Amino acid sequence: MTSGRLPFSIALRVYWEDTDGGGVVYHAGYLRYFERARSEWLRALGVVQSQLQQERNLVFAIRALNIDFHAPARLDDWLQVSVDRVQLGRASLQFAQSLSNEAGKVLATASVKAACLEASSFRPVGLDDELRQRIAAALEAPRS
Amino acid sequence: MTSGRLPFSIALRVYWEDTDGGGVVYHAGYLRYFERARSEWLRALGVVQSQLQQERNLVFAIRALNIDFHAPARLDDWLQVSVDRVQLGRASLQFAQSLSNEAGKVLATASVKAACLEASSFRPVGLDDELRQRIAAALEAPRS
Amino acid sequence: MTSGRLPFSIALRVYWEDTDGGGVVYHAGYLRYFERARSEWLRALGVVQSQLQQERNLVFAIRALNIDFHAPARLDDWLQVSVDRVQLGRASLQFAQSLSNEAGKVLATASVKAACLEASSFRPVGLDDELRQRIAAALEAPRS
Amino acid sequence: MTSGRLPFSIALRVYWEDTDGGGVVYHAGYLRYFERARSEWLRALGVVQSQLQQERNLVFAIRALNIDFHAPARLDDWLQVSVDRVQLGRASLQFAQSLSNEAGKVLATASVKAACLEASSFRPVGLDDELRQRIAAALEAPRS
Repeated sequence: MTSGRLPFSIALRVYWEDTDGGGVVYHAGYLRYFERARSEWLRALGVVQSQLQQERNLVFAIRALNIDFHAPARLDDWLQVSVDRVQLGRASLQFAQSLSNEAGKVLATASVKAACLEASSFRPVGLDDELRQRIAAALEAPRS
Repeated sequence: MTSGRLPFSIALRVYWEDTDGGGVVYHAGYLRYFERARSEWLRALGVVQSQLQQERNLVFAIRALNIDFHAPARLDDWLQVSVDRVQLGRASLQFAQSLSNEAGKVLATASVKAACLEASSFRPVGLDDELRQRIAAALEAPRS
Repeated sequence: MTSGRLPFSIALRVYWEDTDGGGVVYHAGYLRYFERARSEWLRALGVVQSQLQQERNLVFAIRALNIDFHAPARLDDWLQVSVDRVQLGRASLQFAQSLSNEAGKVLATASVKAACLEASSFRPVGLDDELRQRIAAALEAPRS
Repeated sequence: MTSGRLPFSIALRVYWEDTDGGGVVYHAGYLRYFERARSEWLRALGVVQSQLQQERNLVFAIRALNIDFHAPARLDDWLQVSVDRVQLGRASLQFAQSLSNEAGKVLATASVKAACLEASSFRPVGLDDELRQRIAAALEAPRS
């Protein structure tokens, strides 16, 4: 069974929907890729965001992000998107992420700050205990 | 002041976000364009969908659509997107739409059925009286 | 090893990027899902579209599509997207496709016509022999 | 006639396509908005990117971006997206941008570095003289 120990990564394919008229992946598309990796990392910890929203009135919203684009991804590329490091704040998570192609070349790196908000009001709120414990446990897990 | 009489159209620009690696507008992008025109037509009738959702618990959801693509739109094109005809059902709206380039060439035509749903449950519901009256009035308006 | 025999399907996850403010998958997002399945079906036949474009100056472009939406997909859903039937024309492919949730409920069905075009000019062109043979072979393959 | 003097801004409407299941504009959507403003600023200088790509084999690609999200934009919002400052490098442009709602509240700010590339090879290349002169002229224009 998958755990949430870091670095955590998912693989994904580049489709037409992701490309732009320059012949490469559209720059905003990388944000979608990075989010898929964060979502799957949370899922690996047992955190399912649709349940978080509906049952506990919590959502994560992006507060800040920095991306560096080193080389373009292209149609049909098979990419690895990683969550490399996570810092757990009182009401936020700070992610260091990267994206590589099949040859292992790093195409983009990102730093993303996600704040925990009350879903109904979009007001900042501390991570609840269960969320905090699941994430803290994953961050302390030794790499086997 | 703009009214909702038909045909109703908006103009929009094609940006990089809309294109794909084939060098033309990605096929799913036309659906976004057609929806922008429907949204602006409703706005011209005084129907603002965010208010409809929050204040009256109503959303429109697409039930069926047919699109024919005649020729590609490209980066920087200035397009006209139209609502040509609307049929008002008990719990749905049926739209005939088209999309043309600056030279007047029709690039795509669409037939779109939107159902009126209760926003919270996503269950079909009849259009309420205010909505029905606003739309009916627009459809009966003579073209000046 | 995967072959291209029909019905062919892929699984995919619904992420935030796919949802809209109604709380469900945005209607144009289904077109992206259907295309992913077509792309993977072609790949299973040995047809890689980036190579088709660069090495043989061919792209597929959507000429027409009909979609019926039966029920919404939602965040975190695990969907099956299928290519159910394919008709091979001289210069086009006609696809019947469907999309189901984990419980096997069909959420959407689509009929999609893709034309084969010269990539550089976007003019219709017959499928070349290799492409035709690969597809024809898959369509004739008996289901084991 | 519009000129390219700074700050330069465009207005745009938020549609369903831009929102996500959290009820606000999806974070990657802001990148599309910021790019629309950059594209229109270039157009105001007489620089049409489709012509740049086809006639002079040049494209701009994003090398790095930083975004801070201060407050969410929502369906039906009417936004102002600005190019506030531009720094002209040998082979790149550095943009400071911001996005505000109708009440003048700043919802997001961004810093974006775009590199000039040879369109066919995606290799960095200096801005050609015409491009450089048009941009330099705009940056020197006094605010009337």
